[in-house]
Amino acid sequence: MRFISGNKKAILRELHSVANSDAQSETESAVKAILADVKVNGDVALFRLTEEFDGIRLTDFRVPQHKLDCALDGVEVEFIEALEQAKANILSYHQKQKQSGFVDTEKQGVMRGQLVRPLEVAGIYVPGGTAAYPSSVLMNILPAKIAGVPRIIMVTPPGKDGLNPYILAAAKIAGADEIYQIGGAQAIAALAFGTESVPKVDKIVGPGNIFVALAKREVFGIVDIDMIAGPSEVVVVADETANPRFVAADLLSQAEHDKLARAILITTSEPFGQAVADEVEKQLQSLPREDIARASIANFGQVIVTESLEDAFDIMNEIAPEHLEIQVENPMDYLSHVKNAGSVFLGAYASEPLGDYFAGPNHVLPTSGTARFFSPLGVADFCKRTSFISYTKAALEREKDAIVMLAEKEGLTAHARAIQIRFEEDKGNENS
Amino acid sequence: MRFISGNKKAILRELHSVANSDAQSETESAVKAILADVKVNGDVALFRLTEEFDGIRLTDFRVPQHKLDCALDGVEVEFIEALEQAKANILSYHQKQKQSGFVDTEKQGVMRGQLVRPLEVAGIYVPGGTAAYPSSVLMNILPAKIAGVPRIIMVTPPGKDGLNPYILAAAKIAGADEIYQIGGAQAIAALAFGTESVPKVDKIVGPGNIFVALAKREVFGIVDIDMIAGPSEVVVVADETANPRFVAADLLSQAEHDKLARAILITTSEPFGQAVADEVEKQLQSLPREDIARASIANFGQVIVTESLEDAFDIMNEIAPEHLEIQVENPMDYLSHVKNAGSVFLGAYASEPLGDYFAGPNHVLPTSGTARFFSPLGVADFCKRTSFISYTKAALEREKDAIVMLAEKEGLTAHARAIQIRFEEDKGNENS
Repeated sequence: MRFISGNKKAILRELHSVANSDAQSETESAVKAILADVKVNGDVALFRLTEEFDGIRLTDFRVPQHKLDCALDGVEVEFIEALEQAKANILSYHQKQKQSGFVDTEKQGVMRGQLVRPLEVAGIYVPGGTAAYPSSVLMNILPAKIAGVPRIIMVTPPGKDGLNPYILAAAKIAGADEIYQIGGAQAIAALAFGTESVPKVDKIVGPGNIFVALAKREVFGIVDIDMIAGPSEVVVVADETANPRFVAADLLSQAEHDKLARAILITTSEPFGQAVADEVEKQLQSLPREDIARASIANFGQVIVTESLEDAFDIMNEIAPEHLEIQVENPMDYLSHVKNAGSVFLGAYASEPLGDYFAGPNHVLPTSGTARFFSPLGVADFCKRTSFISYTKAALEREKDAIVMLAEKEGLTAHARAIQIRFEEDKGNENS
Repeated sequence: MRFISGNKKAILRELHSVANSDAQSETESAVKAILADVKVNGDVALFRLTEEFDGIRLTDFRVPQHKLDCALDGVEVEFIEALEQAKANILSYHQKQKQSGFVDTEKQGVMRGQLVRPLEVAGIYVPGGTAAYPSSVLMNILPAKIAGVPRIIMVTPPGKDGLNPYILAAAKIAGADEIYQIGGAQAIAALAFGTESVPKVDKIVGPGNIFVALAKREVFGIVDIDMIAGPSEVVVVADETANPRFVAADLLSQAEHDKLARAILITTSEPFGQAVADEVEKQLQSLPREDIARASIANFGQVIVTESLEDAFDIMNEIAPEHLEIQVENPMDYLSHVKNAGSVFLGAYASEPLGDYFAGPNHVLPTSGTARFFSPLGVADFCKRTSFISYTKAALEREKDAIVMLAEKEGLTAHARAIQIRFEEDKGNENS
């Protein structure tokens, strides 16, 4: 792991010097071509692209309803039980996010309010291949369920041996309504534009590779999307009271995701940092995914040594990590120091994987510094708001002069007229 | 106005046959070039681009603080009073949108919660030229104020005669912290990347021309943006009890915005539709912005005659209008029929301009059918959520087997290890 230490300014300068890669233009053109193809050619394009990219010739994308109905038959009972427990925790947490509308009748003759309604159709992208995560199926679908979305469409790349049975079981437990075997940018195109067999959705959520991410970005505005996901990261802020074995294990749980994953320790103690780095090396040796984790640690692993915990939190807020672990004495005291982070894990036993699978908060989180402005996936992502007003004639009359004055200052005479005409007599056609 | 009538299916087919224009690729390249230029060259690019596009040579973008402080001196007292009244209404409405976080300690040893925090820096784009709307300044800034955003940056194109005094006054009343005279895609680039003189923001909101809209789309992910705004539209659902003069005036208040604006009447009564169309023609003749309104009505004005009010609402929901007026007997009975609309105006006296300026709900609304999934601008747009968890050792021990099982099913051994290691003795280095 790379050590960086010094005062806060020096550390921030060092962190900012890492350049962002943005050589994506070739992939971007490929993605645009796929989107246009599916928009124009519909299912014909989908069949052709699936054969080209997935090497699989399908005659129907839709997973038959009876397969979804019987999904639990194909997996172990213990797995179902664990997933059901996770589901209960996710539901009880997200239930608290539910928002209702309001009506305000404080002013006489005036009613103002807000409706909160679920989206009508949600599209969930679930990656296939080695990155098949049943937990993600739950995390993406359950908030939509709580929002009340009546139709949830799941898409996932086709596999040579059919659909991954754990993904299928998770879809059943979460409550997906329909599943289509389509992956990549073509799946995003199908959901955004609709085809003969795939319904057009209102919003697309879920992680995916670079093709999926760029396609989601392109269709934003035609449909809504959750966020632009980049590589995953964890920052652990720890003092010398923390356990280096725990911290190292947590850093590695992030590193094993992806060679581009970033695992960062920020600590006030250099010896503690060294102990964690040693533990990381030691634990790496027994990991099945050692190659991936080692590459991640070698390229992006950092131990940042600061002069104070205050500096540590300032630097953490600059990084705005997806996951933040606070392993210091009295961790709750530092929750108010957190400005920018997706999800916070407090204390020695709130290990990141607990949140990934089980505790209940969503594991779909803003990455790559976007926690500055994006939020964890939640119930609000599957709702839309509508405002409404009603005024009596008397109420409008009270305000009419102010409205007319503002409209006229903006040069919008027809706006002013629309108010004034309501207080004029109808002079009939003879005066026109 | 164009008349469309028949059964629901026939009307929907007719509406869908209108092709979308998407020949934007040239503008898109120009916008990308501007963004790259500002990202690399900072202020130097901003000065050059401002001279090129606005024909104005500036030595400083920042509007001096004393100008902002004295902004109210330059406008009429009546204008200030009207704007202050509008501000009070906007604040009292948006106050009700405020969300707080939560903490849940229902399970022993487990704490789960959510923080809701304001963004740190918000960027507000305010168009210049003929489309200088003080009301938009209020509508964009005040929700950010209520969210608690500590730093609100406003940008607006420079004018030959300096800044529009009404815009400046509105900025003062709304509480902008800093104003920079920059417009177009270069302003969006400055806010997204930051330059020597313009601070980088977390989110960019506000309407703009096609350059601004495309630039916002491009920087989405680097910062957050509010929405992709298209031309404005109103749908009026009316029965024969409505007043054709009122309805016509409201349609025209939409049409005068823009030649691309869409004013649509959906009614169950053909004679009523005809009466509205006649009134539109009559009122058009005395409008100062007759040219714009006439072009909008000629190209996009529609009277849709349906067989029932139910059909009228189904068709309205397919259009998903920015503004919806319901001018029927007992309008409140139909609020529950509204699935997709930005803002709803109920009854004969809730004229759209009342909402544009005064009533309190936001006038920044989803356009072009995006009310299917986007919402009016609101306090939530200026907040981010962060989840947090804390578990005791005993609480984690209760759940550990389920977590380990799920991690192993996903092939993520380091995730499983991070949980297990917390219940193992430290065997020291000798056993590694």
